[in-house]
Amino acid sequence: MKRLGILISGRGSNLEAIAGHIEAGSLDAEIAIVISNRPDARGLAIARQRGLPTVCIPSKGMDREAHDRLTFATLQNHQVDLVCLAGYMRLLSPWLIQQLPQRILNIHPSLLPAFPGLEAQRQAIEYGVKVTGCTVHFVDEHLDHGPIVAQTAIAVEDTDTPETLSARLLREEHRLYAEAIALVLSGRYRIEGRRVIRT
Amino acid sequence: MKRLGILISGRGSNLEAIAGHIEAGSLDAEIAIVISNRPDARGLAIARQRGLPTVCIPSKGMDREAHDRLTFATLQNHQVDLVCLAGYMRLLSPWLIQQLPQRILNIHPSLLPAFPGLEAQRQAIEYGVKVTGCTVHFVDEHLDHGPIVAQTAIAVEDTDTPETLSARLLREEHRLYAEAIALVLSGRYRIEGRRVIRT
Repeated sequence: MKRLGILISGRGSNLEAIAGHIEAGSLDAEIAIVISNRPDARGLAIARQRGLPTVCIPSKGMDREAHDRLTFATLQNHQVDLVCLAGYMRLLSPWLIQQLPQRILNIHPSLLPAFPGLEAQRQAIEYGVKVTGCTVHFVDEHLDHGPIVAQTAIAVEDTDTPETLSARLLREEHRLYAEAIALVLSGRYRIEGRRVIRT
Repeated sequence: MKRLGILISGRGSNLEAIAGHIEAGSLDAEIAIVISNRPDARGLAIARQRGLPTVCIPSKGMDREAHDRLTFATLQNHQVDLVCLAGYMRLLSPWLIQQLPQRILNIHPSLLPAFPGLEAQRQAIEYGVKVTGCTVHFVDEHLDHGPIVAQTAIAVEDTDTPETLSARLLREEHRLYAEAIALVLSGRYRIEGRRVIRT
């Protein structure tokens, strides 16, 4: 059974979706550890309610790499095969990324390379796009940049606000992330340049 | 009947699609003039075969604004209501864009703001996106940048080449451009910031 480490900072809705897919039998994996960099992350309580092991490694005021070394040690202690960022609001250090090449996934609420960074839904609405979506990608040393594992598109409606768009995207994110995790855990892909190609 | 001016540089497949939609009665407009900046554009022959009025205004070696003044005079002579770029491989001068505010449309084979510029399909494949699409937008003074009228998304397959992706996108472009032209001609929209909102 492949073991996931989930990194959160907030409510962890993608964490909850991953746990739900595992419970429902649609994702063959287990959550080995949930790590939050914020003590007050609501996702920590949700994880505990589900009986998932949790650790908080507060990052406030800590040097990035020093914090990431604690995170990495925790991931190793729990024998994690794949790390999934789920609303983890902290850039990873190059050091941590080098320890886990192509072993860290992130989900972002836009069709990358459009609208990287914070408030992607608001960026999309303000730019006036008619189509947006979400992206699961490997994490590399640049923000919201690594090879793309999966994407899905949805329409932006004239009446959308960042809130309504975020809510519709979240439903897609919850499905897409589980699919992308399953693909990566299966190992049935290769990377050519930036392209993730199924094998 | 609203009058279209179509600007081409090459085969003019979107010109042909617009003409087809008009013939089929699915777009209520007429093509008042087809202007090519290249004497050898295959779209000129196609337009003539369809009995459409054509003009060639060669741009090679000409100052951009001087060329655009000739183009504008030709559009005025033919009482054009809306200008549609259809593979027009020349940047418009700020002067021309100012003469025709929100009266020039362009179609681009990506989901803007991703992959502006040349070879958008190749850019998309090399970036490794799983979703791309096409965009109809008002032309402003920046490349592939103005307010977006319509977009549609398609999947990028692992086996896609720039050629296969371009072919699938073209089918979507032909439908999308006609829909976007109809919306703009109807006047049933307003622009808020960068957002084109139907009214």
